[in-house]
Amino acid sequence: MFFERIKTPGIAHLAYILAKDGEALLVDPARDIERYLAVLRANGLNLRWILETHRQEDFEMGGAPLREATGAEILACDHEITAHADRRLGDGEVVELAGGLSLRALHTPGHTPESMTYAVALDDAKKSVWGVFTGDSLFIGDTGRTDLPDAAKTEENAALLYDQVHEKIFPLGDQALVLPAHGSGSACGGNVAPRDHSTLGLERASNAVAVKSREDFARHKSGEGLVRPSYFRLMEEVNLLPGRPMPQGAAPWLPPADFAERAARGQVVDTRPVEAFAGAHVPGSYSVWQGGLPRYGGAIAEAETPIFLVVEGPEALAAARLALARVGTDNVAGVLAGGIAAWRNAGREFETLGMVSPRGLRARLDDYAVVDVRENGEFESGHIPGAHHVPVDRLESELPRLGLDKDVPVVATCGVGHRGSLGASMLQRQGYRACNLLGGMTAWNALELPLENAVA
Amino acid sequence: MFFERIKTPGIAHLAYILAKDGEALLVDPARDIERYLAVLRANGLNLRWILETHRQEDFEMGGAPLREATGAEILACDHEITAHADRRLGDGEVVELAGGLSLRALHTPGHTPESMTYAVALDDAKKSVWGVFTGDSLFIGDTGRTDLPDAAKTEENAALLYDQVHEKIFPLGDQALVLPAHGSGSACGGNVAPRDHSTLGLERASNAVAVKSREDFARHKSGEGLVRPSYFRLMEEVNLLPGRPMPQGAAPWLPPADFAERAARGQVVDTRPVEAFAGAHVPGSYSVWQGGLPRYGGAIAEAETPIFLVVEGPEALAAARLALARVGTDNVAGVLAGGIAAWRNAGREFETLGMVSPRGLRARLDDYAVVDVRENGEFESGHIPGAHHVPVDRLESELPRLGLDKDVPVVATCGVGHRGSLGASMLQRQGYRACNLLGGMTAWNALELPLENAVA
Amino acid sequence: MFFERIKTPGIAHLAYILAKDGEALLVDPARDIERYLAVLRANGLNLRWILETHRQEDFEMGGAPLREATGAEILACDHEITAHADRRLGDGEVVELAGGLSLRALHTPGHTPESMTYAVALDDAKKSVWGVFTGDSLFIGDTGRTDLPDAAKTEENAALLYDQVHEKIFPLGDQALVLPAHGSGSACGGNVAPRDHSTLGLERASNAVAVKSREDFARHKSGEGLVRPSYFRLMEEVNLLPGRPMPQGAAPWLPPADFAERAARGQVVDTRPVEAFAGAHVPGSYSVWQGGLPRYGGAIAEAETPIFLVVEGPEALAAARLALARVGTDNVAGVLAGGIAAWRNAGREFETLGMVSPRGLRARLDDYAVVDVRENGEFESGHIPGAHHVPVDRLESELPRLGLDKDVPVVATCGVGHRGSLGASMLQRQGYRACNLLGGMTAWNALELPLENAVA
Amino acid sequence: MFFERIKTPGIAHLAYILAKDGEALLVDPARDIERYLAVLRANGLNLRWILETHRQEDFEMGGAPLREATGAEILACDHEITAHADRRLGDGEVVELAGGLSLRALHTPGHTPESMTYAVALDDAKKSVWGVFTGDSLFIGDTGRTDLPDAAKTEENAALLYDQVHEKIFPLGDQALVLPAHGSGSACGGNVAPRDHSTLGLERASNAVAVKSREDFARHKSGEGLVRPSYFRLMEEVNLLPGRPMPQGAAPWLPPADFAERAARGQVVDTRPVEAFAGAHVPGSYSVWQGGLPRYGGAIAEAETPIFLVVEGPEALAAARLALARVGTDNVAGVLAGGIAAWRNAGREFETLGMVSPRGLRARLDDYAVVDVRENGEFESGHIPGAHHVPVDRLESELPRLGLDKDVPVVATCGVGHRGSLGASMLQRQGYRACNLLGGMTAWNALELPLENAVA
Repeated sequence: MFFERIKTPGIAHLAYILAKDGEALLVDPARDIERYLAVLRANGLNLRWILETHRQEDFEMGGAPLREATGAEILACDHEITAHADRRLGDGEVVELAGGLSLRALHTPGHTPESMTYAVALDDAKKSVWGVFTGDSLFIGDTGRTDLPDAAKTEENAALLYDQVHEKIFPLGDQALVLPAHGSGSACGGNVAPRDHSTLGLERASNAVAVKSREDFARHKSGEGLVRPSYFRLMEEVNLLPGRPMPQGAAPWLPPADFAERAARGQVVDTRPVEAFAGAHVPGSYSVWQGGLPRYGGAIAEAETPIFLVVEGPEALAAARLALARVGTDNVAGVLAGGIAAWRNAGREFETLGMVSPRGLRARLDDYAVVDVRENGEFESGHIPGAHHVPVDRLESELPRLGLDKDVPVVATCGVGHRGSLGASMLQRQGYRACNLLGGMTAWNALELPLENAVA
Repeated sequence: MFFERIKTPGIAHLAYILAKDGEALLVDPARDIERYLAVLRANGLNLRWILETHRQEDFEMGGAPLREATGAEILACDHEITAHADRRLGDGEVVELAGGLSLRALHTPGHTPESMTYAVALDDAKKSVWGVFTGDSLFIGDTGRTDLPDAAKTEENAALLYDQVHEKIFPLGDQALVLPAHGSGSACGGNVAPRDHSTLGLERASNAVAVKSREDFARHKSGEGLVRPSYFRLMEEVNLLPGRPMPQGAAPWLPPADFAERAARGQVVDTRPVEAFAGAHVPGSYSVWQGGLPRYGGAIAEAETPIFLVVEGPEALAAARLALARVGTDNVAGVLAGGIAAWRNAGREFETLGMVSPRGLRARLDDYAVVDVRENGEFESGHIPGAHHVPVDRLESELPRLGLDKDVPVVATCGVGHRGSLGASMLQRQGYRACNLLGGMTAWNALELPLENAVA
Repeated sequence: MFFERIKTPGIAHLAYILAKDGEALLVDPARDIERYLAVLRANGLNLRWILETHRQEDFEMGGAPLREATGAEILACDHEITAHADRRLGDGEVVELAGGLSLRALHTPGHTPESMTYAVALDDAKKSVWGVFTGDSLFIGDTGRTDLPDAAKTEENAALLYDQVHEKIFPLGDQALVLPAHGSGSACGGNVAPRDHSTLGLERASNAVAVKSREDFARHKSGEGLVRPSYFRLMEEVNLLPGRPMPQGAAPWLPPADFAERAARGQVVDTRPVEAFAGAHVPGSYSVWQGGLPRYGGAIAEAETPIFLVVEGPEALAAARLALARVGTDNVAGVLAGGIAAWRNAGREFETLGMVSPRGLRARLDDYAVVDVRENGEFESGHIPGAHHVPVDRLESELPRLGLDKDVPVVATCGVGHRGSLGASMLQRQGYRACNLLGGMTAWNALELPLENAVA
Repeated sequence: MFFERIKTPGIAHLAYILAKDGEALLVDPARDIERYLAVLRANGLNLRWILETHRQEDFEMGGAPLREATGAEILACDHEITAHADRRLGDGEVVELAGGLSLRALHTPGHTPESMTYAVALDDAKKSVWGVFTGDSLFIGDTGRTDLPDAAKTEENAALLYDQVHEKIFPLGDQALVLPAHGSGSACGGNVAPRDHSTLGLERASNAVAVKSREDFARHKSGEGLVRPSYFRLMEEVNLLPGRPMPQGAAPWLPPADFAERAARGQVVDTRPVEAFAGAHVPGSYSVWQGGLPRYGGAIAEAETPIFLVVEGPEALAAARLALARVGTDNVAGVLAGGIAAWRNAGREFETLGMVSPRGLRARLDDYAVVDVRENGEFESGHIPGAHHVPVDRLESELPRLGLDKDVPVVATCGVGHRGSLGASMLQRQGYRACNLLGGMTAWNALELPLENAVA
């Protein structure tokens, strides 16, 4: 039996290849299918089945291009939005795979109405379920969020999901491997445990959905207040298809003067390390560190606006384009040829960001305004005394309501200084004297500096 | 939490890195430590603990060079052969790792006297064991072989191991991940299941040690008759250290004339695909396909004899040297510069092997002698009617007793034609008219040609 | 100043990038432009000019896709077939490049009517020509062949070319670097010297066009009798465009049964080493070693026939598709999934080729028919006594006229056994008992075995 | 014939491999021989001869380890410092290489007393010299510097070198390729032309040694005032050997606290881009951009002082260690594990550098002190009005004599901001308010801001 977990960094998406006797099943593929094809070829596998647990919101799905490339059939829930599927599975339906492997489909709505869970049984241990592809119905340590279909029904859907987990999933047995669609760091769940390997037995002992009562769990979900990244809307649309092929062709490399001229009609995204962004950047650019590009590049980008990239080199460019395409952002219209070095050597003006250390900030706290750009849960777990709070996804729209003084330096802060750099670049774009707290709350806490808790 | 399984192909060895809060544990490392260091660095991990489940027989251990490179401490059983350990753990002893992870040591003799199993518990699911590093005490589908310490006590040790599994390991709970030191294809177990992911619950439902009675299991183990590769002796010696650093320096590339002269005083090993070996090879050379090099290169090599390689190119050479070093074979004394092309272009004599197809063999079965070079279990599961049987490890020494006619073509056969090519090269070295059954028993069975079963 | 020579192996094509102050000229690009773009990007260069010396016959040109990707303009001869050029240069016209570099265009017909030579002068040595892009008008050691436009005018065109070299090129000065469009191994010249670095002074001392008289040179050219690979016709057509983008999309990986079925309606090309082909191959397949793929893949392929590949692995596949696309062969319709191992393991029938060593052949010369498949010049320089002679490009069509006995083994021979393997595969396809002389005439000569000369 | 130029970036060192009939000559190898061995192997070449033009001052030679690895013999001048050579060649002595290639040794002192030039003749153009390995006796556009053996005799040695070039080298003919030991950017010559391909004819037309009279040339050389990097002394010593093997083993990755503690007893070198260094760096660290590491890492390092590196990742570390080892700096004692991100996340203090743009500096020129850290010739070609001048090699020792005010911001400037960043880091270490002019004089000149010329 062949089994491999294939992770998409940045959005913590997990796809799986399961095969026996050379015939493979691929669960929840993303749009950049070449990486899956490479695994299939390297192991001499023939893809027969593409299995979808549900319509994804946080990345563009790859079922359609993969079917095109391999002739495999798409299996999904029997639901009105899965018209693209070749075979639509009802609750309890069993699919025989190769070599005695079999798959039982379980309808587990709650995260979304069409969410499915699939239990895999092996022929050499027939009575036992080997593993469970849980999609977003059960994560390690948590479940998927339940606010996406309708924010007003978050609690109701949480209760529905609670029932699915307890009535359909946990009964599959403690021994079964838990194989969810996302891991820690996903925007699809609030508190996913930072590990990728678990079993139903372990989840029964520790998952929020197991240790809380039905009521508490539903209330907990409705109180999470998770940010809904703006690009989710686009994903919901394109994933009805499901999935377009990757964009072809190279983005033009533009010398500094051309870049400046063209980028004036788009958004400049700089993927260099936050220290390099602070040292010098193209005026008006957004700082989105390489690892955060899928999540926050998708969050900044508007479908119609062309994106212009500043990167460290050709490899970083390839990584950036891949990361953006994964979240459906295909409109990269140009790259700064020669990078920031070409910009500086041409004598063009640049901007810098102030860099503040935790001790430096502590010592002069009254001289700064502090804006904490983390999510609700993070902010509530403890923050710098007096800090304002706006998650970075909403910072641009909500800045005016904070009423900050443009003559006072504003320090953005987050976990380690990544989102802080993005936040600071947003502040700078709006004319504030922006700084980034380098090391963020991780450094602040490492030094045991004083905290204030929103939720006392 | 960080967790990664690192597999050594060819010998199906599994090492594991487990870390939390940047502090890592590495279980059963092999000698070529650079690959572990690369994972540690890429993930910002500091290696603190090297955990040994037991003294390995099938590869050279890497604890010592890894300790040298990182300052980590070696943890092992409290036993007379583990003098190299920094900390020797008694049965039931608990080690606190970082971030609330803890490790419970369980003495589980049977495979070897000092064999240990280690149960890992997470702080966020304290009462549950997350995973179990079982070493060779419990594989997926089987246990380690029990004949190595003393062949005469195979049954007794099997019963001992049965007890450990039932009394110490299974009680850890169905939910626990099984993390053994070897997977399918290992020479350390007879019938390991061809999958790498399991739990104690799944093993309780299907493992030989679970579904057989104590007596049956012990008898089954004693009847397996597994081959003991000759290089295991060397491993047992060097692994008392435990483990030498990798050999440094490049093997000289020798033009054909030099190669011929020097190789006359050593063994020539040709790692090209078996079809290429059949097409033309240096007279007297052994055919060991790249993937089989650790297992069968180690089996052929004698510690004192220099090895001369014929490979496809620089990458194949690097892979070959790595594979050999992993099983302690450091005496690569030269490489044929320019490969077989240089040999042929110099006009030097070469040999070919006959290639026989299953249908071709079937049609003229009386014209050939057939030697099946697979292991006992494989042979007993069905073979070509009239075939002789000698596992390839013993073929050179046992050939005389078969009394084959040197004027009759002899066909070696195995699973797909790899070991068959090695066997045929051994036959050719001893003057037989050697052929290889291309596709081996896989092809024979695919065509549903007649079989004979040794064990009716 | 930036200067780089970019060689296309297999067809010995040379392109050049020359740049100053960040602005680049690219001479004679091929169709797979990504490698040029990579050099340009890595060195921060902006492509301004694409320079064509003439319409190429042996590979598909890349001016058009490169212009599309970069906005550079195409410079070529002022001639009726260069309608695609953005700027058409007359004899003697000077183009100012960046940073004081200048280019003088010289019309040098003979190889083809529109052939140009371009002399580059540097501003820091203004009176001296630095280098000369000679296209196929002057190679190192030879000139381009003069039979392509009209075989009947080979001698006349050779005399014309002689005059261009003496009157226009040599006067540029001994100090000038010679930068031709092809090196040794090209099918565009008969006797190119096996080195890539020369100057006009060195050529004046040793090139055939310099050391022979005008009459001798013209006669020599007309007597060369070079093979005209069949794919040249296709290149002449597509290079009127000039050049199509590379084919997109992957060829399907076909399991053995599908491969067998579909390949029956196409041609199977096996790019594995010749020894592996000899050991086992798909019945009816052509043996074209990887390095010979552009030249001989192009020679075998017919524009309409789909090609099915047998390769060693994914990397070899990528190399094969690239090599074929370079010579305009885009119709790769499938790849044997799992390679020859999958074929053999499925129990499918295969063929082998006989392998003969030089000494073996010499000892039993009367038992074999020998067919030397090299080109005229090679055959005339000495061959095996009694050998037939047909260049491999014409072997399939001319075999019947040789009247060979199908019961007698036929040995194909060439330089080292590559074209011999292709020839032997052609013989086998037509039902002969085909063998390959391993090591070919290189090995034969290394052993100083007897030769016969066609031209006494 | 095989010929390849192998360039060492950063120090613009050129080595050459020349081969025929599989037997190779390697000219002036550096210590990291694996790259040469890779070329030899990939092309099936057997190294027979290692040719040294002279004892190098700017990198550690590799003759000894290469001889050890291949058995090749070392050929050098017949001089008291070449005791390590296997064969010592007198002026005019001829060495026959393989395949009719021959080498004529010419003693051409001036750069150093034992400097040799070697002329290569081909057998197919016997009367013509094909190429000339000129070492540091003749560069493209210049000759080697003549101050190294004895600064007091710079003029005398320049005249001596002038004679060698005119009497021994130029007479070899305009057609000969010039193959020097260094290209543009080398510290071994003052004004090497920025191109790598030339001939004697081209040099006769444009090289300083050709266009100046003997007297002018000698005076010119003595007036150049080139900086002598401090590590040249070490190279002169170790290159008597000639060359040690590369250092083995990995440098330890140190977590922030360990790094801080240990680095206090060494030097911290930060190889990240200058913008990232400006954004945040470990207090007291030197900024040496990756590409400048061989030249300036060697210049900063003292043989006994351990070096601690801050790099972007594992690849940058490997590149840094290689670059340092090439200039004999083997004492890398540690690397910051996790890079600057780990440092910042631990809450440790960091420093930033001010970044000044050309227009920004121009607008407030009176508010800054400016220190131009380029070499004499660069400074004299035009600089910012009022700038102080100290080449960066001497900045640390000469800073006190400038008498700068520690309360006034000091801007370091160079060509593009690389050496400026190094200079600014030196200023910051001594307590100045240091800034870097981003884009340096390249940007300043691109904007056509006013210049002052030292030499009116």
